[in-house]
Amino acid sequence: MDNYYDYAASTPVSQRVLDAMKPWENEKFANASSDHQAGRASALAIQQARECIAEKIRALPSEIIFTSGASEANNLALKGFTFKHLDTKGHIITSEIEHKCILNTCAFLESIGFEVTYLAPDRDGRISPSSLAAEIRSNTILISIHHVNNELGTIQPIKEFGAIAFENNIRFHTDAAQSFCKCDIDVDDMDIDMLSISGHKIYGPKGIGALYVRDARDSELVPLIHGGGQEAGLRGGTSPTPLIVGLAAAVESYPTKSDSIEKQFLDVIAKFDFTRNGGVSVVPSTWSVTFQTDKEVKRFMSDYPWLISQGSACNALSNVASHVLTAIGMSEETARRTYRISLPPHQISES
Amino acid sequence: MDNYYDYAASTPVSQRVLDAMKPWENEKFANASSDHQAGRASALAIQQARECIAEKIRALPSEIIFTSGASEANNLALKGFTFKHLDTKGHIITSEIEHKCILNTCAFLESIGFEVTYLAPDRDGRISPSSLAAEIRSNTILISIHHVNNELGTIQPIKEFGAIAFENNIRFHTDAAQSFCKCDIDVDDMDIDMLSISGHKIYGPKGIGALYVRDARDSELVPLIHGGGQEAGLRGGTSPTPLIVGLAAAVESYPTKSDSIEKQFLDVIAKFDFTRNGGVSVVPSTWSVTFQTDKEVKRFMSDYPWLISQGSACNALSNVASHVLTAIGMSEETARRTYRISLPPHQISES
Repeated sequence: MDNYYDYAASTPVSQRVLDAMKPWENEKFANASSDHQAGRASALAIQQARECIAEKIRALPSEIIFTSGASEANNLALKGFTFKHLDTKGHIITSEIEHKCILNTCAFLESIGFEVTYLAPDRDGRISPSSLAAEIRSNTILISIHHVNNELGTIQPIKEFGAIAFENNIRFHTDAAQSFCKCDIDVDDMDIDMLSISGHKIYGPKGIGALYVRDARDSELVPLIHGGGQEAGLRGGTSPTPLIVGLAAAVESYPTKSDSIEKQFLDVIAKFDFTRNGGVSVVPSTWSVTFQTDKEVKRFMSDYPWLISQGSACNALSNVASHVLTAIGMSEETARRTYRISLPPHQISES
Repeated sequence: MDNYYDYAASTPVSQRVLDAMKPWENEKFANASSDHQAGRASALAIQQARECIAEKIRALPSEIIFTSGASEANNLALKGFTFKHLDTKGHIITSEIEHKCILNTCAFLESIGFEVTYLAPDRDGRISPSSLAAEIRSNTILISIHHVNNELGTIQPIKEFGAIAFENNIRFHTDAAQSFCKCDIDVDDMDIDMLSISGHKIYGPKGIGALYVRDARDSELVPLIHGGGQEAGLRGGTSPTPLIVGLAAAVESYPTKSDSIEKQFLDVIAKFDFTRNGGVSVVPSTWSVTFQTDKEVKRFMSDYPWLISQGSACNALSNVASHVLTAIGMSEETARRTYRISLPPHQISES
């Protein structure tokens, strides 16, 4: 798909990842919970993958819980943690521009008695640490703010969020689906207690992700999927060895440099009259572009029939301005001239 | 793995399934929620897979909700349904010999105020319809009994369970992880309201399954994974196109006849002094074998160093008799001489 510019929605599985997965599909296919040599081989491969993911964010292997993706990881973080507090309930702080899976989970938690504050971003899509600090209450139990916005590419000051959470003894979760591997992450330095990652945003398979949970075994997280004791009892279901091995291979083979497509894109976009949204601290692969006029939109669409996105994939099939563009103060009319163009992601140098 | 006899724990992915999945990994890899031609191609492939699964159990495509596996499907069925009743709570009937993911989910539901009755099986592992009927209360909201037992292979009389549930206006869920494709299933004829299926038990990929939900859109099921509106709003997360396509390919290519391994196994086992557990109505691929003496166990293990299982994979790593063997009245000593030997599964003729 040489006209594909929607890498923030999903990436292809790299050949190296496919090669790593293959033997676990139909040669070494035993259930990792089976107590025989074939089962132990699967369990060992999963353990090695766990070490690889942990190392990437400077966590311990025992703190990585494999899930079916970032959406499940986000749900496990928010529900798994708050379900410990079903009797007493409590207050959660998040932002207006989270992924829908966070916002819909929060709406559910509100429906069963939790209170939720939604922080507003500035015009660049940045959540300010001072606005977070101002909303902390005596019964605030959880802060969940994403690392990189999926529509704008804006990088949030999560180290400052983490410090505020730590000072106030509140758990801090971040959805890192759009930042994992792109941005440097150190869960200790950033005071992150839980962090969600996705496979298919980093050239890994769809259907796999993980939740980092600080001191997972002592976390008393309520499982979202109760099962047969897998993942330290925190996530049931037969471990999908090929997908887990694939996720680790994606981390190990994640590109450190930009693809040539990025240069080609820069040459093309320079020919148009546009504004890039998201402020100065954005990931280089995600471009939220507002064309100045309808005529510019038409010219772009006609000259470059690219596969791009209005808003994120998850909002794409609805016909209104996305909640992210609305939250940064964009009018419906301007939002209609705004597109997300996303390039092959790669590791970026530290800001 | 020519000494592998643990197919009830997991099957290899068949070549036909791998071939079906391949193009969706790195050629047609777009997010099925993306509103462009590549996204629509993924969405169409998923819809075709949904039709295939639905047809297999005589359901409607809109009643199939893809999940990460049978454990998630079981959790979604039980929690998704009961969470509608968080205020009033209610009574659930299940059995003592369900998969751990059902039993652990029920324990969780008990911990938050639901009542659960666990039906005891007879010595063959069969749950009697009359014992079910006897336990129905005015506040019974859900019955969840599996179709085929994973350790014994016993086929439960689910059509009779379904009729009892229907007469009493109670929802009936069945975990069909060990029966889907093996046994003929007609959700209408059997009065099944929810049914869980697994990919990796039928030569499909690990990490995929589905929940059949009668009239899913009107079911008011509370999502386990809140997300961006995928799966009729009942299960969030980017749809894993390769896994879903693979699940459908596994259904389409499921073997109708037994593998030659089955004949070889019958020749071998005939040389030993043993009892087969599970009664007369069992699936032909799952053998729960109790050797008469320790000496027979030793002779078998020494002559046939097969990869087999004590209990199911999910119980395998603990060192006590499985809850299933205990529930059918087996002593700890007899359970130690009992092994599950499971052969390549195939469609069985109707009983």
